[in-house]
Amino acid sequence: MGEGLRTLLFEGDRLRLIDQTKLPTELRYVMVDDEQTAFSAIRSMQVRGAPAIGMTAAYGLYLGLKKHVDLDKEAFFGELKRQAEFLKGARPTAVNLAWAIERLVRVAHEQRAQGVRAVLNALREEAKAIQHEDERACRTMGENLQAFIKDGMGILTHCNTGALAASQYGTALAGFYVAHERGLKIHVYADETRPFLQGARLTAWELQQAGIDVTLICDNMAASVMASRKIQAVMVGADRIAANGDTANKIGTYQVAILAKYFQIPFYIVAPWSTIDPKTTSGREIPIEERPAKEVTEWGGVQIAPRDVPVYNPAFDVTPHELITAIVTEKGIYLPPYHFA
Amino acid sequence: MGEGLRTLLFEGDRLRLIDQTKLPTELRYVMVDDEQTAFSAIRSMQVRGAPAIGMTAAYGLYLGLKKHVDLDKEAFFGELKRQAEFLKGARPTAVNLAWAIERLVRVAHEQRAQGVRAVLNALREEAKAIQHEDERACRTMGENLQAFIKDGMGILTHCNTGALAASQYGTALAGFYVAHERGLKIHVYADETRPFLQGARLTAWELQQAGIDVTLICDNMAASVMASRKIQAVMVGADRIAANGDTANKIGTYQVAILAKYFQIPFYIVAPWSTIDPKTTSGREIPIEERPAKEVTEWGGVQIAPRDVPVYNPAFDVTPHELITAIVTEKGIYLPPYHFA
Repeated sequence: MGEGLRTLLFEGDRLRLIDQTKLPTELRYVMVDDEQTAFSAIRSMQVRGAPAIGMTAAYGLYLGLKKHVDLDKEAFFGELKRQAEFLKGARPTAVNLAWAIERLVRVAHEQRAQGVRAVLNALREEAKAIQHEDERACRTMGENLQAFIKDGMGILTHCNTGALAASQYGTALAGFYVAHERGLKIHVYADETRPFLQGARLTAWELQQAGIDVTLICDNMAASVMASRKIQAVMVGADRIAANGDTANKIGTYQVAILAKYFQIPFYIVAPWSTIDPKTTSGREIPIEERPAKEVTEWGGVQIAPRDVPVYNPAFDVTPHELITAIVTEKGIYLPPYHFA
Repeated sequence: MGEGLRTLLFEGDRLRLIDQTKLPTELRYVMVDDEQTAFSAIRSMQVRGAPAIGMTAAYGLYLGLKKHVDLDKEAFFGELKRQAEFLKGARPTAVNLAWAIERLVRVAHEQRAQGVRAVLNALREEAKAIQHEDERACRTMGENLQAFIKDGMGILTHCNTGALAASQYGTALAGFYVAHERGLKIHVYADETRPFLQGARLTAWELQQAGIDVTLICDNMAASVMASRKIQAVMVGADRIAANGDTANKIGTYQVAILAKYFQIPFYIVAPWSTIDPKTTSGREIPIEERPAKEVTEWGGVQIAPRDVPVYNPAFDVTPHELITAIVTEKGIYLPPYHFA
């Protein structure tokens, strides 16, 4: 992706995000210059994808605190605590958000003796470090995933785990980009991923831009495609991986995993190590965000269901570890039984 | 449903259809007065649902031939043959369409000796008979389905199998209406059913009108709801049932059946006897209609995917008989192994 297509661009002490609610019809940007603008970009899903929201929150915390450079140390650290809690509440499921915030909070406390300006410098460098590490991790995940990608393969993916979800290559899609660079021919089936349509709007668009063969399907067509033997692997991302391997990811992932098992197709999770939350022992403990009914009943101002109909709109579901063939991170490939510590 | 809400109303030698592409935001009608207008209403899905398209085609054939009342007998029967083939081509999967047309063709040949006017009368009466039989069959299917509906049950349904899909009560939804009349409390989860959103636009709307509890979900949320033990049965319709019980129905049905099996939830097909096609020995022989990419990439003029992205858009899939707990028709309840003749 070119400069204009960088999901997160931190420059001149401002963070520029691609507004992912407008793709693929419009390429618009959102500027983040404090914790409030970071919060609302995350909450409204202008930026989404577990690694990307972690990075946005980290930059948002630095930028939000920068406005309080003139506070005395105690008041500044009070503000740090407030902003950190505030940002962690933007979305509850992806652990990367809390993980990034906690990294910054730890660094701030380490630098506390040096004064507020030194703390701010350290926060900015830590946020940038998170982004640089994510770029490297994406590349490595993509390389590690090659163990499971063969020439001529059909691969089903769900939601968007590409450059738009992370800093550069993405997670599951990193594997597709690396395979493509190495001259392998793959064919990707992208679930459109209702209600937010990340598959239709983002994955299909990203892969087309990259020249990778992609076919868009509705979420309810996966079994039909699998039955016709066009899919040899399912590869998706994650928002939180519990110690036992249970994995929260975009709503619909669970049923794709059940279908994959039924059709004896391997099912892979691809995520950075920061998505693993060893403090969460199993998927039952992962909080599942429910989002507004309007995301299901309207699209682009067009009403597609009765206005007042009750709607259940969970943003994520949890795929039990027994349905997961392997978990691929930048640290390597993990096979069952999973025990993350 | 009141008069204004009757899916098909044949009056004054014209057929009035509710335009189902406009619901639930607008209640508009389409008038059918020959085979051309019947064809386009079926093809464009202004009328849909296997029984409803069968009836529309039957009336359309009668009305189309009425314009040729002045032809001599041989020319008239040539026109009958042409229009019958034309109408059968409107949509290939639901067998009710061909079944209704063939019924009219048979009656026409039986009346041939009586002359063209007598044939036309017989065609009109046969089309009306099909509608009357469908009304009775829907009611009986609804009653038969009570064998599997218990008070307090959560029931998942897919697509629309209600009053809008048939002449009065519908097929699977007939069971919900009868249960509701009898004072049973049921809670229906309606899959929105992409890409055409029959669940969101039609089922949710119909059930709300009838005062039956309904929650709308996206197609990819079914596993999440099943995992939370809110569903005790899945009940759906059919477009064609092969002799061995393999059942073509709206795209997404197959994967709902796989999920039901995984969660050990019974899965029922509800359809009139006319949906059974004993000449089709198994699901492999059922033609599956593929529809335009635009149905997936646009909604109400709003683009939701890259304009030129390749799309796979099958309108139906085939659920293998081994996933079907029972097939409920107006003639009774059929359990596996299925052998329809």
